[in-house]
Amino acid sequence: TDFVESLPVKVKYRVLALKKLQTRVANLESKFLREFHGIERKFAEMYQPLLEKRRQIINGIYEPTEEECEYKSDSGGYNDDEIYDEEEIQATTEENKEEEDPKGIPDFWLTVLKNVDTLTPLIKKYDEPILKLLTDVKVNLSGPGELLSFTLEFYFKPNEYFKNEVLTKTYVLKSRLAYYDPHPYRGTAIEYCTGCEIDWNEGKNVTLKTIKKKQKHQIWGTIRTVTEDFPKDSFFNFFTPHGSSSNGRYVNDDFLLGHNLRTYIIPRSVLFFSGDALESQQEGVVREVNDAIYDKIIYDNWMAAIEEVKACCKNLEALVE
Amino acid sequence: TDFVESLPVKVKYRVLALKKLQTRVANLESKFLREFHGIERKFAEMYQPLLEKRRQIINGIYEPTEEECEYKSDSGGYNDDEIYDEEEIQATTEENKEEEDPKGIPDFWLTVLKNVDTLTPLIKKYDEPILKLLTDVKVNLSGPGELLSFTLEFYFKPNEYFKNEVLTKTYVLKSRLAYYDPHPYRGTAIEYCTGCEIDWNEGKNVTLKTIKKKQKHQIWGTIRTVTEDFPKDSFFNFFTPHGSSSNGRYVNDDFLLGHNLRTYIIPRSVLFFSGDALESQQEGVVREVNDAIYDKIIYDNWMAAIEEVKACCKNLEALVE
Repeated sequence: TDFVESLPVKVKYRVLALKKLQTRVANLESKFLREFHGIERKFAEMYQPLLEKRRQIINGIYEPTEEECEYKSDSGGYNDDEIYDEEEIQATTEENKEEEDPKGIPDFWLTVLKNVDTLTPLIKKYDEPILKLLTDVKVNLSGPGELLSFTLEFYFKPNEYFKNEVLTKTYVLKSRLAYYDPHPYRGTAIEYCTGCEIDWNEGKNVTLKTIKKKQKHQIWGTIRTVTEDFPKDSFFNFFTPHGSSSNGRYVNDDFLLGHNLRTYIIPRSVLFFSGDALESQQEGVVREVNDAIYDKIIYDNWMAAIEEVKACCKNLEALVE
Repeated sequence: TDFVESLPVKVKYRVLALKKLQTRVANLESKFLREFHGIERKFAEMYQPLLEKRRQIINGIYEPTEEECEYKSDSGGYNDDEIYDEEEIQATTEENKEEEDPKGIPDFWLTVLKNVDTLTPLIKKYDEPILKLLTDVKVNLSGPGELLSFTLEFYFKPNEYFKNEVLTKTYVLKSRLAYYDPHPYRGTAIEYCTGCEIDWNEGKNVTLKTIKKKQKHQIWGTIRTVTEDFPKDSFFNFFTPHGSSSNGRYVNDDFLLGHNLRTYIIPRSVLFFSGDALESQQEGVVREVNDAIYDKIIYDNWMAAIEEVKACCKNLEALVE
């Protein structure tokens, strides 16, 4: 850089020496990232039985015992309301005799995904019946010898929409940080990601809009109907493989979403389901919305002021005439 | 939450069971954070000799050897310009006989800090002579048995400004994540921070503005001069201890700055000195600046429009009269 070139030559060489030291730091960082991933892998295994039990409860495979339901809210002391109340259950069970007892926790994952503010806008009405069929969302970390990566796995009940049992998206992590990676432990340390091909059943692909067009033969004048497919907004575009050629902003948003799903949303999904995790999220949303409202108010005020002055001008003009 | 309350009672209890599982996940997370900190501590020790050599080169305690200066730029292949060139050195050394050969890398840390976009606005003209006296900036991680924390240590040459040899700021980390901590590996996992008392020499405190006031005695009418101190903007306010009672926004910015200093700026300071680390940063800065300029232009345009219309009104009014 020009600045370094402008330094006295001896100072310049000292800076080069520091840069050389820096490459050694970068090599250590790379080892650090591997070791860090190793710890994540170890803890992923420790979480595994808890996540498996979660899956079973959600899907009605396992019914939690009374003791397992005795959740005491974190905010100090016993909270009688939240403790398994056998009488209440029995009373309600009697009442609800006519309504079907739902299996597990219906719409668990759809509700979770819809409660993530960066996902909400991606989920369209026609995606919802498919997302209701989610039985589990898992994170799979790369093994010890492999390229550092994590894979998000979305498991579905057998369904009429596609043949896949699981849809996946793999995020390959940087195993060595570049100068311009400011937050080593954040989503930006993702190198690239790959989606998966969804094997849609005939006419069930929600990511395509089929348009029928009539074509007239140039010579014979006969008319035929052709159909053409256009891409359509859908949550399932999340699985479309995309490379570095895509729009930078979109890729960054996708990387951050992948990172958040992995470190936060999937491991704490119940808090998104129940709404507990929304509180702080909403703070950010509220602030953003407020900013937009604020801008709007300022704009409106200016517009009103100008209209007022204009009207005043018109009145004066009328007077002059 | 209302949503959970509205669920069929059996489903509600299943959700409570998931919440109870979640507290076990949280306990594992807490262990994970400790183990992660342990790795950071281990690597900090491995970085130590490199950082010590950096300190010595910056302060002219150690002169790097020819080989140590042979830095090859990362961007592929040998770059002759950047390799220690003895002839150039000797030539320039002859030339520069009259100018003093600077010791080490002058103003290293001041330049680094001024190149961090979130720090630049905090550094005032009167802070610069003091920051020129920085000999080292270190990160000190808490020990194995201690509260998870890191301390930023700013080392100064003995100076006329204050008696401290080192100014410190300690960030205490969360050892257990709450629901609303969205990014476990980011600055937001900081619980609180404590600064340090700066032992300023008489009349040298750049964080205070002393105002002289004349007071008239109510009865005797005699006049006396009193001085009163007011807080003044200064980089050194960074060390002012502040609790959770402070403004939330400010605290968050400070936490993020502390995190960035620790994980990014201090370990890669040479890249901030040389400007290499600026490239991507500037993108953000340019965008922010552009936004501000854009807002200003819009505002100015409205103001101009209104002034114009007002003037027009005045003219018309004059005509009417």
